[in-house]
Amino acid sequence: MKINIEQSILNKYVNIVQRGTSLRTSLPILEGILLEAKNGKLKLTSTDLEIGIETFIKCSVEEEGSIVINSRIFGDIIRKLPNDKIYISTIENKICIKCGSAEFNIIGNSSLEYPELPTITDNFSIKISADLFKSAIRQTIFATAQDETRPILTGILFEVTKDKASFVALDGYRLALRNILVKSPQDVKIVVPSKTLNELSKILEDEESSLTITLTSSHIVFNLGETLVYSRLLEGQYLNYKDIIRKEHKTQVIVNRKLFQDGLERASLLAKEEKTNLIKINILDGKMVIKSNSEIGSVYEEVPIENKGEDLNIAFNSKYIIDGIKAIDADKIQLNFMGSLNPCIINPIDDSEYTYLVLPVRLAKEDY
Amino acid sequence: MKINIEQSILNKYVNIVQRGTSLRTSLPILEGILLEAKNGKLKLTSTDLEIGIETFIKCSVEEEGSIVINSRIFGDIIRKLPNDKIYISTIENKICIKCGSAEFNIIGNSSLEYPELPTITDNFSIKISADLFKSAIRQTIFATAQDETRPILTGILFEVTKDKASFVALDGYRLALRNILVKSPQDVKIVVPSKTLNELSKILEDEESSLTITLTSSHIVFNLGETLVYSRLLEGQYLNYKDIIRKEHKTQVIVNRKLFQDGLERASLLAKEEKTNLIKINILDGKMVIKSNSEIGSVYEEVPIENKGEDLNIAFNSKYIIDGIKAIDADKIQLNFMGSLNPCIINPIDDSEYTYLVLPVRLAKEDY
Repeated sequence: MKINIEQSILNKYVNIVQRGTSLRTSLPILEGILLEAKNGKLKLTSTDLEIGIETFIKCSVEEEGSIVINSRIFGDIIRKLPNDKIYISTIENKICIKCGSAEFNIIGNSSLEYPELPTITDNFSIKISADLFKSAIRQTIFATAQDETRPILTGILFEVTKDKASFVALDGYRLALRNILVKSPQDVKIVVPSKTLNELSKILEDEESSLTITLTSSHIVFNLGETLVYSRLLEGQYLNYKDIIRKEHKTQVIVNRKLFQDGLERASLLAKEEKTNLIKINILDGKMVIKSNSEIGSVYEEVPIENKGEDLNIAFNSKYIIDGIKAIDADKIQLNFMGSLNPCIINPIDDSEYTYLVLPVRLAKEDY
Repeated sequence: MKINIEQSILNKYVNIVQRGTSLRTSLPILEGILLEAKNGKLKLTSTDLEIGIETFIKCSVEEEGSIVINSRIFGDIIRKLPNDKIYISTIENKICIKCGSAEFNIIGNSSLEYPELPTITDNFSIKISADLFKSAIRQTIFATAQDETRPILTGILFEVTKDKASFVALDGYRLALRNILVKSPQDVKIVVPSKTLNELSKILEDEESSLTITLTSSHIVFNLGETLVYSRLLEGQYLNYKDIIRKEHKTQVIVNRKLFQDGLERASLLAKEEKTNLIKINILDGKMVIKSNSEIGSVYEEVPIENKGEDLNIAFNSKYIIDGIKAIDADKIQLNFMGSLNPCIINPIDDSEYTYLVLPVRLAKEDY
């Protein structure tokens, strides 16, 4: 291999591909990035066997070839080189990197040892606005399960029916649902690991206007133009989330999102001292009272509201309710309650495309 | 106590005073901030018995009084309150904080339990430009000893003779010295804990134009206007650093600081893999070669220089040499060598007010 390439460009794409390398792996080869020079392009590949990232960079190829080099060392070197032309060449399993007056000679590995990414036979694909996709991930990913007791819940359900794509996350305490418009030739129901979507969100830059999703039975591929992100899918049956989101309610509240969030965050300053994060909410006529107690003291907050239906005393883990409210961009939000034992359903006002549902904490009557 | 005060002002000064509270202490009262309302001012005090911070804030005092409240909780509450008037009152050991529609009732401690800060009988004081003081700390503090085997070396020596103040730090591997001009009624030689100077640097804002230093036999007080920072001094005899800084040299090099730093940083990418951080430098006619090897490869760098005197092969721990070069603001620096076994002395070019001295690593001849 013998190529030359601009430092600024190589650095940008190395940063992207590094997101796919595995840091803790029993297969040392996976700590590396595969470099392949061919047809006027440098292809960089990384994978931890769950996620795979491939990117193609135009460059001047004098001699084709390939090698695997430790991802962290390669990334550090490229980042520290001056913004100038970098000359990369290989002799057997050695890679030489020259730029300005700097020359590195590093021992790499044969590309033959590097695992192949899955071959995607182009089944069918869906085009999605990158902006909408990113916001849908941001608004749901925090509600995925953090522990592995039910692995399927560590991912986000991606379901397409007709022209609507739904992103769903739930962990047994709360559920986040976001719908966006897409055009798809057929229906889809898959669960994508949240790690993949997290990395993908970081890779998706503001400049990207859209991405294309291709599906196979076991994999999903996100095509960002020069970069492809592969991911295995999570196997298993996802919960029938639609049954959880009830339509009826007995108490309805409209509240300014920021005032509500500020009040909750202040109340949880004391709640978090106790680890249970318990806050109590009273819905009264025209106002909501938020209370919290701990050994060191108490807090009392009043937030003005518009309300309909019954008065209500209800308690929550403040973290779960704050997470959902922070994910909403609207100025005003609507809360729907059905007594103190049923979930609270939160929507941005006049927008049913985002729904957040959170379970209350059950208290004895005298504790409210 | 019964006062009211603007949130933005209280928040600013609570952030300052929090720097003096102790996080890990066997005396729980030291986790608190002492609030004292008197003569139209709120005084906040914190101390970990090494550092003490006192700040005076003008406010409306309806009723004088005092209380101690947990620093973290008080800070979190004040930070999260809206930018509005805060009403603080106390009844016995309870403090009530009201702002807008939020009300906190927190259990505090009696101010009688809080330790007193040392009384400073105004011996004599020195006025120093805050900017110069901050840069002198920045340019020396990293060279203080990190371990406690010789406690005196964990501080910065502050020595005033005639109109010159010297800041000195050394840890057995390197020495950093910065001189600034001051007017002082008498000579001074004290060692200030680096923790104090670190916190003080963070408190000193750009707006401060000067600070006044007052000294007693065991304490130093920094007067910043509304805020006073107290610190005990380190006891013991500081090394006679002047003997270490030799005047003569056999090899002299002038080099562009950025090119040298970039080359060193790249060379240390491989050096740090081996934990010894070993880099080798060859001074030749018109160029300096920087080399480093590790199991995974090697790096070779050339940096153009102006040189006088003997050629030289010398080796360093790259961290120690980079630390000093990063502390220098000048474009060009001067390196003075006296063979491969004596320290390298680094100055900004044409500026003897900053000196950095670093010991070489001794290698067998064939290893250079």
